[in-house]
This record gives sequence, C-alpha cells and structure tokens, in this order.
Amino acid sequence: MDFTLFMPTKVIFGKQCIFENGHLFKEFGKKALIITGKSSGKKSGALDDVIALLKKEEISYCVFDHVMNNPPLENISEGVLFAKKEKADFIIGIGGGSPIDAAKAIAALYTNELQPMDLFSHSLKNASLPIIAIPTTAGTGSEVTPYSVLSVRELKTKKSFSSPYSFPKIAFIDSTYTRSLPDEVTIDTAFDAFSHCMESYLSLKSNHQSELFALEGINAFSKCISAIKNRDFTDDIRDYLMYSSYMGGLAITMTGTNVIHAMGYSMTYFKNISHGHANTLFVGAFLRYNQSTVPEKTEKMLAILGFKDIMQFERFLLSNIKNEVTLSEEEIREYAQLACTQKNINNSPKKVDQSIIENMYSEVVKGV
Amino acid sequence: MDFTLFMPTKVIFGKQCIFENGHLFKEFGKKALIITGKSSGKKSGALDDVIALLKKEEISYCVFDHVMNNPPLENISEGVLFAKKEKADFIIGIGGGSPIDAAKAIAALYTNELQPMDLFSHSLKNASLPIIAIPTTAGTGSEVTPYSVLSVRELKTKKSFSSPYSFPKIAFIDSTYTRSLPDEVTIDTAFDAFSHCMESYLSLKSNHQSELFALEGINAFSKCISAIKNRDFTDDIRDYLMYSSYMGGLAITMTGTNVIHAMGYSMTYFKNISHGHANTLFVGAFLRYNQSTVPEKTEKMLAILGFKDIMQFERFLLSNIKNEVTLSEEEIREYAQLACTQKNINNSPKKVDQSIIENMYSEVVKGV
Repeated sequence: MDFTLFMPTKVIFGKQCIFENGHLFKEFGKKALIITGKSSGKKSGALDDVIALLKKEEISYCVFDHVMNNPPLENISEGVLFAKKEKADFIIGIGGGSPIDAAKAIAALYTNELQPMDLFSHSLKNASLPIIAIPTTAGTGSEVTPYSVLSVRELKTKKSFSSPYSFPKIAFIDSTYTRSLPDEVTIDTAFDAFSHCMESYLSLKSNHQSELFALEGINAFSKCISAIKNRDFTDDIRDYLMYSSYMGGLAITMTGTNVIHAMGYSMTYFKNISHGHANTLFVGAFLRYNQSTVPEKTEKMLAILGFKDIMQFERFLLSNIKNEVTLSEEEIREYAQLACTQKNINNSPKKVDQSIIENMYSEVVKGV
Repeated sequence: MDFTLFMPTKVIFGKQCIFENGHLFKEFGKKALIITGKSSGKKSGALDDVIALLKKEEISYCVFDHVMNNPPLENISEGVLFAKKEKADFIIGIGGGSPIDAAKAIAALYTNELQPMDLFSHSLKNASLPIIAIPTTAGTGSEVTPYSVLSVRELKTKKSFSSPYSFPKIAFIDSTYTRSLPDEVTIDTAFDAFSHCMESYLSLKSNHQSELFALEGINAFSKCISAIKNRDFTDDIRDYLMYSSYMGGLAITMTGTNVIHAMGYSMTYFKNISHGHANTLFVGAFLRYNQSTVPEKTEKMLAILGFKDIMQFERFLLSNIKNEVTLSEEEIREYAQLACTQKNINNSPKKVDQSIIENMYSEVVKGV
C-alpha cells in the first residue's frame, strides 16, 4: 500500500452552511474579492447570500463577475489587475469550475510576480491569497482540488496548473445552489463528476486510498441515475450529485484525470461543447479500450452503476446529452495531436498513442 | 447530508516512505526535536532511520526520549522545559499514541504561555511548533487527529485536548515499524483502531462522510481477523492494520470517540491496563446495549467482520486479550462516575447514565 494524501481544505457540506459559519470569513481579513461568472453566482442565489453575510460580518467586498467559461489567460490577467487595484485580503470564488479555477489563478498571480502563462511552468514561491470556494454546479470538484484549468490561445487548448497553495482554505458545499441550473447543465456536470471518479479509479496512478473516494463517488452517482433519466432532481439527489462531485475532486487530487479529459479539451476549445458533455462523449470508447486491461475494475463499476455492460451504460450517457457533433479527418488528427501533449494520457491503464486516440475520436464523432 | 471535514495533515503511507521524502523535513527548519518513548522508537528502527535522515539532510536534532505511557502532565512539562532549552524549529513524534500525543502537547505549550492543565480549557492563540508524526503502532490514529490524550492526576483520569493547530503537518505511516512489536501489543492496538472505527460509526455524531472512513477501517480490520487468531502478521496484514488505524483517526476526527473510551480510561489510569486492551473489554457490552437503537448498523458491521452475532465477535476479541481484571463494587461506582465526566459519553446512540455505565462495567469485570 503506497499513497500520498494531502487535502488541507476545510469542507463544510450542507444546506445553508455558509450562514452557520459566517465567523469563518472574518479570519481571512477585512476585504473580500468575490470572483464569479456572469450568471451562475447570481441565479443560484449564492452571490446574494455571500454579500448578505459579508455585510453582516462587516467585511467589505468588491465583485469581479467577468469570468468567462473555460477562462482564457487574458481573462485571468483582467482579474489580477482588478484584484491589485482593489487590494483584497482574500478571494471568494462562486460558480462552476470556471470561476473557482479563475479564483485560483488570480489568487496565485496576486502574490507572485508571474505572467499567467508562467503558471504552467513555475512553482509558486509565495502562498496565494486565501480562497473560499462555493460551487454552484455539482461537477468540477474544484473546491477541493489544487487544479485550475485555463484556456491557452497560444497552445490552442486548455491546460491545468496546480500548486499546494491553490487548495481553497474552505469549501462551502451547499447543493441548494444547484437548484436553479437547467437540467442540461445538471446532467452535463453530473457526468463530469462521474468521469472524474471513473478516470481516477481506472488510472495507473490509482491506489488504495484514491479508489475509496472514486468508488464512493461512483456509488453516489449511481443513486442519481433514475433521477437523470426522469429529470427529477430532488434536494436529496442534488446532495448526492454534490457529494459525488466532491469525491471526484478528492480522487483526482490523488491521481489526476485521464485520457477522457485530454480528449475533451479540444471539443470544448474548438467546438464550444461544455466540459461535462465533451467528457461524456468518450466514456464508452475509453472503457472499451481499457476493458481487457482492467476487467475487474470495469465489472465492479458497472455493477455499482447497475448496467449490464459498457454499451448499455454508454447508451444511458449519450441519450442524456446532445450528441450532434461531427469532426473531419483533419480535426480528428489535430485534436489527437493536442491530446498527446497532455500529461494525463499517461494515466491510461492500457497505453495510448496518437493513432489510438484518433480511433477513439472516430468511434464517437463519426459514428463508426 | 451535513458534515464538516478538516484534516490538513499530509499523509504519506508506504514502506520506507520517510527515505523518499527527506527533503520535506527541511521545510520545517534547521533543528528538530525528536520526541519518543523509552523503547518503541528504538526497537522499531524508526528513531535510527530518522536520525540517519536528519544527518543526511544536515538538520541538527535533539532527542527527548522520556515520554511515559499515557503521559501525565508533569511529563509534558518536562518535555516543554527540554524543548525551550534546546530551541528546536519543529518536532518529530515517534511512537505509539503516547509520544505523538505528548508531541502535540509540547508543541502547543512551546508557543503558547500556558500550563499543561490549561490545554483542556483554553484555545491555542498561537500555532503549535510544526509536528511530523511517525507511528510505530497501528492503533492510535493520532498521526491524523487533532487529539492528544494525557493523564491528569488531579482528576484521576485521562483527558484529551484538541486544537486545529495540533494536526501533524506530515504523517509518515510505514507499517514496517510495527514489525518489532510483541504480538500482544499488535493485537491490543489493532483492537483500539477497530474500536475507534466502531465507536465513530455508531456515534450520534456520525455522518455520511465519517461513516465512509469508519466502514473502510472496519473493512481493513476484517482482513486481519485470521492473522490475529493465528498470530501471523505478514507485511500485508501490517499494512491493513496501519490503514485501519489511520481510517479510525479520520473517523474520530469527525465524530470523537464514544462510551467505550470513556470507560476504558479508568482501567488504564488505575489498573495499568493498556489502552487498546481496556477498550476491548467493553466492546461487547456497548454493542449489546445499543443494538436495538442501531440494529442495521450493528448488522452491517458484523457482516463485514464475518461474525454471526455480537457474542461470537466478543468471544473473538476477549480470547485474544488477557482478561483477568476484576473490580470491586466501589471501583465500579468510582469509574462510572469518572466516565460520566467525559463528553464522549454523549455520543452513544442510546443514552447512557451512571447506572447504565456501572452495569456495563459489571457485565464485563465481574463476569455477570
């Protein structure tokens, strides 16, 4: 048994949890910078809740609500400028993966004299500004990971950096903030969370400890399958989805993601397909490719999920997302090439290379 | 779903794990204070390993190897004096629960102007000296908890304090350090670890997250039952025991312990019975008392353990420890009274009071 676990974020999980813990915000200083996107913070009610709380606790604040989906580095620079002008003591990231990941990048660049692009090649010398993360989707798990995924135009892809300083200090995980999501987003993000768990579980880097979290997340996801089919998301189901997303975060913190994420990035970058949707496309192909290498794990996972084989599970996934994208031969080649620049392809149980990844793309997006 | 998880310790689990991570020691300063007991650090080989490593990393060190079993406050004061004289930058606690718990108390008193007795009533204002914990028994889980249990002569019992500052910065968990333990100690401590998991699982404070750790620990313990019967502790079994102890630590960090620990303290304090042994005596009585309140949990646990009922499981436990202690009526009254001063008795699923605790003592130590 060999593993390393480091996850210093204080996780506070439950309905209305920020209100019971207002005093914790004060520990980080007198001025908060709220980082969020155009809509999720607002529609979910989380932004209003946080502002009400900050007022009550007499903490001043400023709001940067320009985070774009899959934030490009230029968007991060804009946030850093804003943060430096406002001189905040700590950051509150509210939203899906994009605002929380942006918060991590801005928090790092606030205290380290680096350009956004340097985040991918430099270790942080100074601790980031403290971050409080409040997810409003149940997918990313970013509230408990050190990862931040950003879009890099120069490299035509998404790229992630990570630092021990990028773990949020506190994650307030309140599933009621997902109530306002369109069903399509609830499902896309739920599939992203599942994919984190599954990619981690099958990863070459998986270990006794990470598998506990991955299987626990898969187990929580399995309780939501009927709800997904019926578009019937009760508060209990939303709790399970949030928990599965959080477990996925713990799992990938230990193992990283896998080929599916590497393949999905281009679908998001070039085709503007949501992250969860993009991952979902490749789950079946990935499972089929690896089945003979990790037959027991595949079997165990399907049993937990309640599907008789990969095909049946894939049908469930694909029937719950829009699946209309097609790629040309040239696009497939380019995307596979880009996927091969991502380190996480090395986590595949059965080795992959460019031609294998091309095949996986073809299998899905050409209907072969 | 409601819970709070905070466990900031970096856990590095595996054989020879300190040697692969020598550089981490340097992050904490130039001089280490090693805190250990008379024998466990030495016999296990851990002390020699740590000293060799510190030399290699050019970190100077001093050794306080006077930690007594169930360390009394006077013993802590002695350690604090030594630490202040030596002016160390960080502490390395090596041993079973006693040295690691002593390390937490000494680390706290080094940076806070308090008397040892104040630890039970005052929050720490200043961060403790950083602690690296290296367990040499698989029982306490102290390497990942904020708890420190000390003997208090004035109160004629053991008492625990906890602080967010008392989490070790790093836990190096290497099960090979348990190879040199007498079988009796291996078993006593294994039962302590099990008891942590079980007391947490059945606790009123248990929750979705703590139950994951508690059941995982019980599951790991269940793989060691034949080995315990046969006194056949392979390296794989030692890994499972260490993992179960670590899981128990995670579980009780969230929920605290329960009645069993409250009852065991007097057996250790007055009768010099080891902590694990003391707990083991009361497992059966505790399970029987609570069975009707938590029937499903009891059933699930027995199923994981592979026993058909509480009686059969209790027989297994008691046949593997020396069980020769008897108590007078007066002792039973006094111990039950002392147990009632411990907060953890409130974690019992079915409410307990002094007379119920007296009955539990009688059931076990008078053979009723």
